[in-house]
Amino acid sequence: MQRALLLAALAEGGTSPNPLVGAVVLNASGALAGEGFHACAGEPHAEVGALAQAGEQAKGGTLVVTLEPCCHQGQTPPCTEAVLAAGISRVVIAMQDPDPRVAGAGMERLRDAGLEVITGVLEPQAAHQNRAFVHRVSTGRPWGILKWAMSLDGRTALTNGASQWISGPQARSWVHRLRARCDAVIVGGGTLRADDPLLTSRGQRHPEPLRVVLSRSIDLPVEAQLWDTAVARTLVAHGPEVSAAQDTQLPEGPELLALRASEPLDLLEALAQRGCNRVLWECGPGLAAAALQQGCVQELAVVVAPRLLGGMPARTPLADLGFTSMKQVLVLEPDSSEQLGTDWLLQMLLS
Amino acid sequence: MQRALLLAALAEGGTSPNPLVGAVVLNASGALAGEGFHACAGEPHAEVGALAQAGEQAKGGTLVVTLEPCCHQGQTPPCTEAVLAAGISRVVIAMQDPDPRVAGAGMERLRDAGLEVITGVLEPQAAHQNRAFVHRVSTGRPWGILKWAMSLDGRTALTNGASQWISGPQARSWVHRLRARCDAVIVGGGTLRADDPLLTSRGQRHPEPLRVVLSRSIDLPVEAQLWDTAVARTLVAHGPEVSAAQDTQLPEGPELLALRASEPLDLLEALAQRGCNRVLWECGPGLAAAALQQGCVQELAVVVAPRLLGGMPARTPLADLGFTSMKQVLVLEPDSSEQLGTDWLLQMLLS
Repeated sequence: MQRALLLAALAEGGTSPNPLVGAVVLNASGALAGEGFHACAGEPHAEVGALAQAGEQAKGGTLVVTLEPCCHQGQTPPCTEAVLAAGISRVVIAMQDPDPRVAGAGMERLRDAGLEVITGVLEPQAAHQNRAFVHRVSTGRPWGILKWAMSLDGRTALTNGASQWISGPQARSWVHRLRARCDAVIVGGGTLRADDPLLTSRGQRHPEPLRVVLSRSIDLPVEAQLWDTAVARTLVAHGPEVSAAQDTQLPEGPELLALRASEPLDLLEALAQRGCNRVLWECGPGLAAAALQQGCVQELAVVVAPRLLGGMPARTPLADLGFTSMKQVLVLEPDSSEQLGTDWLLQMLLS
Repeated sequence: MQRALLLAALAEGGTSPNPLVGAVVLNASGALAGEGFHACAGEPHAEVGALAQAGEQAKGGTLVVTLEPCCHQGQTPPCTEAVLAAGISRVVIAMQDPDPRVAGAGMERLRDAGLEVITGVLEPQAAHQNRAFVHRVSTGRPWGILKWAMSLDGRTALTNGASQWISGPQARSWVHRLRARCDAVIVGGGTLRADDPLLTSRGQRHPEPLRVVLSRSIDLPVEAQLWDTAVARTLVAHGPEVSAAQDTQLPEGPELLALRASEPLDLLEALAQRGCNRVLWECGPGLAAAALQQGCVQELAVVVAPRLLGGMPARTPLADLGFTSMKQVLVLEPDSSEQLGTDWLLQMLLS
């Protein structure tokens, strides 16, 4: 099962709306006979690939699979029939498929056909690996990751808005890899105007994640990196108050989508319908707070950079330090980091 | 020398205004004959203790010591004379004493007397261990540590000021241990009024660090935990505008100190004169920013707690989340933390 989970993980970010699935076939003597994973929606399921690789060796053998085999005709035929046709005697499953078209019926079909079915093996690990898919199937909304990079004093920009760069190149590369695991990357109109972001994985995902601008109006800049849809698709999701006449300002390329309301929840329902299992919020504070409040965030990824920016807020650790350029900010030298209970302690030296 | 550094560290927080010093004596055959460390100002120096323990075995032996032996009469006689009297042949030293009364003259005295003197052994480690002492001797100001605890969204309080507790019990215990390593703990009048803090090490340091309130005026609460000086001494450092007539409001106990100006730099010069090697800033954003800007901070200790508070500042990661009580704030489940270059990546799940 650990091998099957590793195989499943090879397609991370590539299978939506489908889950990640890995499968291993052992012959009747228990020797490895075949392996497979689900690479992409429309491609064969993991079980089918592993059984094909095993061929005659599957007879009387064991199929180990990270998710319950499907029993319905989708883009590909039901896997249960392939398992039966291959002559497998025993099926070991990590977890039940939450898809209501399966939901235990796959296991039932195999048991009814006389196969031994063992389930719940490494179930927590399998559930964690497919948490985005499970969340989308059970809530109708993709799993949301909210990401930000901030200085050690909790700033994402100077008071004049300057913010490039707070985090270092390794952290920015990590964000590209994070995008490669997501089906869509979401910003608001404010971030588009302020940062003119590219929002791609820099080629680490094919196709690139869908880039989404959530905006009340479509009063957006005429020129923006997001409007070049040769590199990646762009969706402008807007509220119902936008009239067709306003559309003219945006160039050809980005797709327009009218939501019932320009709210995170409405957007996520629309993205789930388009097959997104996991989305990344890379937005400013207003949209981030709204996404949190509407239950659209399940996971946080925060980069804390060893810099001090200062500024005057409600109450954060530092008042104004008078900086007007990112070149002026205090740069610190990391000394040590450790976890204290559920807190992190970050110690550093002034250079 | 590693053993000598470990011995020196036993007195961490207890030797000011003196440095940490550890010493080991090996006999003529190289076997361990004596150990010592400097425990407290006024007590014997490390070399003297180690030599006394070695007794006759010191003859023809080696003294290993983390700091150059002193050659001047202070509260105790010069160590160089004790080394010579013991018949030591070789002295191994980590680093030169930056105290202008020594500064190489101790080594010179030993060399002039015919002893072999080796220096620079584990010098970086020794300099790091005594960085507070070295900083105070070379700048005339104690080493400053600025500490704060904040939520993952960079908040130290809700917009209504509520802040107890952002960090967990392990982090708060760590702060008590940090105080035990410091000679003074500094807050401003605002923190005193808002939090009525105790500022002790909870008995982990004897005596407790000096508790300092830096305030322009002495218009401070009549009742405060800091005014009970049975548990620890308290110093109220104020600006020159305070007249003697105003003093009456404060109870007996806390000492008053008039500074040229109620600024971090003026306070630290006064604390250095009182023998403080290391001070801890536990103040609010205004005083913290001033301390940073005046070069009064050499080290930062930041606790990041897995909570989200929200609020509307210059620009921090989250806008207002509408919380009015610490019981409402979003509590996160830490998933993983790692260093990316010089940044920290903290990943966590919404519960």
